[in-house]
Amino acid sequence: MRRFMVLALASLAVLALPALTQERAATLDGFSPDGARAEQQLEEKFRAIPSPDNMRKSMQLLSAHPHHVGSPYDKQNADWILAQYKQWGWDAHIETFNVLFPTPKERVVELVAPTHFVAKLQEPAVPQDPTSNQQSEQLPTYNAYSIDGDVTGPLVYANYGIPADYDELERHGISVKGAIVITRYGGSWRGIKPKVAAEHGAIGCLIYSDPHDDGYSEGSVFPEGAYRPKEGVQRGSVADMPLYPGDPLTPGVGATPDAKRLPIKDALTITKIPVLPISYGDAQPLLAAMGGPVAPAAWRGSLPITYRLGAGPARVHLKVASNWDMKPVYDVIAKIQGSTEPDEWIIRGNHHDAWVNGADDPISGQVDELEEARAFAELIKGGWKPKRTIIYCAWDGEEPGLLGSTEWAETHADELKQHAVVYLNSDTNSRGFLSAEGSHAFEPFVNDVARSIMDPEKNISVWKRLQARRIEMARTTKEKDEIEKQPNLTIEALGSGSDYTAFLDFLGISNIALAYGGEAGGGVYHSVYDDFYWYTHFGDPTFAYGKTEAQTMGTAIMRLADADLLPYDFTALSATLKRYEGELETLSQTTHDQIRETNRALDEGVFTAASDPTQTYVPPKREESPQDLNFTLLKQAIDTLSKAAEHYAQVHSRVMQNGGSALASASLASVNQKLYMTERALTSDKGLPGRPWFKHQLYAPGFYTGYGVKTIPAVREAIEQKQWQLAQEQIGVVSGVLEKAAAAIDGAASALDGAVH
Amino acid sequence: MRRFMVLALASLAVLALPALTQERAATLDGFSPDGARAEQQLEEKFRAIPSPDNMRKSMQLLSAHPHHVGSPYDKQNADWILAQYKQWGWDAHIETFNVLFPTPKERVVELVAPTHFVAKLQEPAVPQDPTSNQQSEQLPTYNAYSIDGDVTGPLVYANYGIPADYDELERHGISVKGAIVITRYGGSWRGIKPKVAAEHGAIGCLIYSDPHDDGYSEGSVFPEGAYRPKEGVQRGSVADMPLYPGDPLTPGVGATPDAKRLPIKDALTITKIPVLPISYGDAQPLLAAMGGPVAPAAWRGSLPITYRLGAGPARVHLKVASNWDMKPVYDVIAKIQGSTEPDEWIIRGNHHDAWVNGADDPISGQVDELEEARAFAELIKGGWKPKRTIIYCAWDGEEPGLLGSTEWAETHADELKQHAVVYLNSDTNSRGFLSAEGSHAFEPFVNDVARSIMDPEKNISVWKRLQARRIEMARTTKEKDEIEKQPNLTIEALGSGSDYTAFLDFLGISNIALAYGGEAGGGVYHSVYDDFYWYTHFGDPTFAYGKTEAQTMGTAIMRLADADLLPYDFTALSATLKRYEGELETLSQTTHDQIRETNRALDEGVFTAASDPTQTYVPPKREESPQDLNFTLLKQAIDTLSKAAEHYAQVHSRVMQNGGSALASASLASVNQKLYMTERALTSDKGLPGRPWFKHQLYAPGFYTGYGVKTIPAVREAIEQKQWQLAQEQIGVVSGVLEKAAAAIDGAASALDGAVH
Repeated sequence: MRRFMVLALASLAVLALPALTQERAATLDGFSPDGARAEQQLEEKFRAIPSPDNMRKSMQLLSAHPHHVGSPYDKQNADWILAQYKQWGWDAHIETFNVLFPTPKERVVELVAPTHFVAKLQEPAVPQDPTSNQQSEQLPTYNAYSIDGDVTGPLVYANYGIPADYDELERHGISVKGAIVITRYGGSWRGIKPKVAAEHGAIGCLIYSDPHDDGYSEGSVFPEGAYRPKEGVQRGSVADMPLYPGDPLTPGVGATPDAKRLPIKDALTITKIPVLPISYGDAQPLLAAMGGPVAPAAWRGSLPITYRLGAGPARVHLKVASNWDMKPVYDVIAKIQGSTEPDEWIIRGNHHDAWVNGADDPISGQVDELEEARAFAELIKGGWKPKRTIIYCAWDGEEPGLLGSTEWAETHADELKQHAVVYLNSDTNSRGFLSAEGSHAFEPFVNDVARSIMDPEKNISVWKRLQARRIEMARTTKEKDEIEKQPNLTIEALGSGSDYTAFLDFLGISNIALAYGGEAGGGVYHSVYDDFYWYTHFGDPTFAYGKTEAQTMGTAIMRLADADLLPYDFTALSATLKRYEGELETLSQTTHDQIRETNRALDEGVFTAASDPTQTYVPPKREESPQDLNFTLLKQAIDTLSKAAEHYAQVHSRVMQNGGSALASASLASVNQKLYMTERALTSDKGLPGRPWFKHQLYAPGFYTGYGVKTIPAVREAIEQKQWQLAQEQIGVVSGVLEKAAAAIDGAASALDGAVH
Repeated sequence: MRRFMVLALASLAVLALPALTQERAATLDGFSPDGARAEQQLEEKFRAIPSPDNMRKSMQLLSAHPHHVGSPYDKQNADWILAQYKQWGWDAHIETFNVLFPTPKERVVELVAPTHFVAKLQEPAVPQDPTSNQQSEQLPTYNAYSIDGDVTGPLVYANYGIPADYDELERHGISVKGAIVITRYGGSWRGIKPKVAAEHGAIGCLIYSDPHDDGYSEGSVFPEGAYRPKEGVQRGSVADMPLYPGDPLTPGVGATPDAKRLPIKDALTITKIPVLPISYGDAQPLLAAMGGPVAPAAWRGSLPITYRLGAGPARVHLKVASNWDMKPVYDVIAKIQGSTEPDEWIIRGNHHDAWVNGADDPISGQVDELEEARAFAELIKGGWKPKRTIIYCAWDGEEPGLLGSTEWAETHADELKQHAVVYLNSDTNSRGFLSAEGSHAFEPFVNDVARSIMDPEKNISVWKRLQARRIEMARTTKEKDEIEKQPNLTIEALGSGSDYTAFLDFLGISNIALAYGGEAGGGVYHSVYDDFYWYTHFGDPTFAYGKTEAQTMGTAIMRLADADLLPYDFTALSATLKRYEGELETLSQTTHDQIRETNRALDEGVFTAASDPTQTYVPPKREESPQDLNFTLLKQAIDTLSKAAEHYAQVHSRVMQNGGSALASASLASVNQKLYMTERALTSDKGLPGRPWFKHQLYAPGFYTGYGVKTIPAVREAIEQKQWQLAQEQIGVVSGVLEKAAAAIDGAASALDGAVH
């Protein structure tokens, strides 16, 4: 196939770098020969424009003061960003939504027995860090959308606070009913911790940063090093976003002035129990005061104590009270009208709000997006006319709950479903390796883009560097071999945790998320220390990777905006589906085996026989015999989709013969619409079981992992929850969706065939 | 096969415990029907005798004062043990050897830059622990057989100090040449650490106990809990025992008064650089003062610091000076003469010397052995006449270097090779699960014994409890299934670290080591706190497992001493050999793959591409292409041995028909000798490459692991060292030895066939 020939060339090219320029003269997927040449010249011009100096200046300005939702500087930043776009000639405006955004009124964490200790809940200013002392402007350390509460109870340590951790507590005879649970950050998205704690009967939840995962164990702490200092706290939302993100009061619709709003008490995404985040400085006296069984080895962090499970003698008083106010969020929306296909929209976004000063999160991504926008403006002055409409967004309210992007996507759902080709997202960016996530029909396209971008630290493409990284990190030589031999690097599926969520999961719009990271390290996430001082010392001091990120995203967007034929490759999708289906069968088998083995071990008294009689040990519960799952329908549907993908690939291969010269004269508008509608065909109107907001049937954030993705989630989560009947039903539902998608792909293939012959 | 039928019955019996008594009435391997009945009655009588009260009293006495080699209380204990045996009617004496045993004259560890700190090197007395204050009698904290030295240099942290850790240091550009290396206990036997440090050019070595592996991370520290306190230090020998154990001056011969002795300077097992053990209290200021790259995640312990590799700015002054004195070691040797086969010896030992008070190590094992001896004396009064000679040994000088057992075995090598059937060893013993190690032809026998012993905490056999433990600990359901289905639990191969070494590795005598542990936890190993207070609070407070250990060892010894036909099962050996051979092929393949992958990654610049340019990173060295190994000879030899094993099993099965009635009239002396000589046939006179003292070709302590066993060591270690030529040669050598063993087994089968027909 044509694509693989291109890739083979590319692969050689990145080995011998002087050849990189020659590669750029090769065929470009979806472009005619003339188009490809022109595009590559434009892209090269583009990649020379983004300026690290501008990025540094913009970051210094945008992170000069705390700029959370509802703060004066949040509005000031939105206005400044709007002014930039306008000054560069974009058609820009601010779109405002009104959302529920609680801020702390009262916060108390105190040990009341066996001794007394009051947690500081305060991040001290650091002399050499000029913005760390803006206490009057800073949001206190808290978890947004914690319910108000005033509770006192024994403390239980629940590790990362995921469901399996409560199974382990049960083995030790520890119940969290009536207890306050202390969990550590990591292992899941933070919002999962109070949710699962409440499901198990806890009355309150603390989340602390253990120095093992986030502190001195990893390196020197701020300000000497990049890592979380003793009093550093990770703020963050705990709204139950795996149910629905966005304003808790307006699920599924935009939070416009006239939107119908739920009463606060009916907002399902507010936590059921009060929760606060604390530093390891505050956590240590609490943990050290605990009794009960010694925590399992994997639960122990790096504090100089014996980690114990509780409950008792440590008792804690936890109080949380918030101002439950409505606040405005300001989305900056800027547009370049497409020249020939104005109704096909390429959308790109990065949020501008932060928990505090937020230099890394999100300004490091925001300043790159701004430089892309400035560069596009320059190209347009030079005569560039993108075929498709380009929409650049600077979202507000991402931190509390993806508010700005979700409300905008919900408000404009109908037109977005009609016109949106792809949504490209970024958030934080720092030194390191490319991270590539998104819709798998874009996997080859993303690889092509990555082959066009030079790594600023090494004289190779970012693709080659990522391949090297993956080879190095792979554990077995077999895995290393496989990575080395794959023409394309796999891209990851998207879960949640940033603004792409509504576009992908609610609207079924193809997504791409590209960013750099992995070398900066650091532990200032969502603290007052995530600021200009930190970023320019540890994140990306020269903004070299800021420039690289702008080059990468801009190149992808230009190619998508200019292509005659959108660069979908459904064979990448069908290969991914086969992998997922295999995983589901393995998961089902493994779960079956585990249930059978556990029940047999219970019958034979294995757990009781092996336990230490001086310790409390409760054997696991006997489980119901699992139902055998029949995957035939799913495999058939994937087969159908694979055939459709192969059909499209054959037509596409013919179209791209002779460098794609057939594209020059073809009329492709309806083909392209059919292409981007294939992602919509992967959704179901009913959504996922129990959470109808999530329509996409291939990707979703896990109900019990939060940010972590679950692929083919309706089936996978049913198996994980051992809901066999539901799993079997959902195999049918997903199969139906895949048959629908296969028909859409087949339709696109036929349309393309017709359009060029 | 008959054995498996017995086992199937046994397997049912342990599920339904009331049937355990019935099982005892079943066939007993190697006994005639009458003999089996009589044996089982005797064994039941025996198992009722060992008294926890006696064990407690003996422990209190034997651990009342420090009793290391050369101390007055060491001699006093030996005399007391001798008196016990004599009082019980055993034929007992003390055998004395004169050995080199250095004790500290001067010890200094101090940080000299960037700040000054002097290590305490002292374990404080604990008020509630009455023997912890015997400072004047205690050996200071030190590593025996460290060379004298006075060095100052930069500090480098080398994790566990195994060869792979130095590869990792090299990746970070860190050399230990001229440096003092600080390593943590664990990951290998301690003597490996200074050896490998010296091989890499270090000038000194510190070994500390990290609280992650041995301290507060595991549980409350002594005296509140069982774990190592801040100032607790692990003493221990660092003589290069994988080269040869025993007196460094008399390799291969007994350290008798007239033995030819090496000059101290030629003693190869003394370390090349000075080394001292330190507590985590003393280690923390040193580690905290270090600079350089942050240690890899797996290297980080539980101290509240950032672990760094060095070198600099921390510089350390290390001084060690010892009194290099000759000291006597007192082995107590006691005998019960065999009635009909006095020239077939069943030998059992446990040492009596300790580093300090040593209640756990070794008195917990010593008091069990004493109770067995007392019980045997009672049985003899009641008329028991063991067929074979039973020899009970209380070894001195185990701690510094297996001195007493090695010198005795070397002194009596000729007669032992002629007469020794099996050596049974124990050392420490505490609450928990059976640990079973030894020669694999005894695997079914050991399983049979374990099925006869009741666990004192649970109403099941120790076999069933161990099976439950292994099922629970297995990671996959497949492994769990396999353990559940195996008629016998596998026994582990013996490495080193206790007194069996000379018997197994130097003389080729079949070995069995049985003990209990795993529930007591604890961190007082080789410290002043390993004493009566600790053991009676945390080790085995009721001595219930002391009694179980005496029942287990005594039962095994009685069965071996009384059997008409020794209970060898060579199919267990051949199955084990097949497993080892498979492991060697896999190891070879994996090593080949790794070399190929590393070299390819070097060719393609993977390591350089993936590295962070702000960090020092040195790619691994290019390796020579490995030579393909041909395992045909080894597989053929194992086939031959398997056939011989099958031959013996068939004859044995016929012999054991009708409950073994054919044994009543058979003349088996020469058959039994042929049987126990099969273990001698597994040795080679030349020994292992580079270490001729180690004769056994199946089992040896690893040259770079110390205690940890290497099976088929000549081949395995050559592959690990990538010495392909040597590996191929040694495949030939081992194959020859296995062919010889196969012939010996075949000879035993024919002899048995002849003896009963």
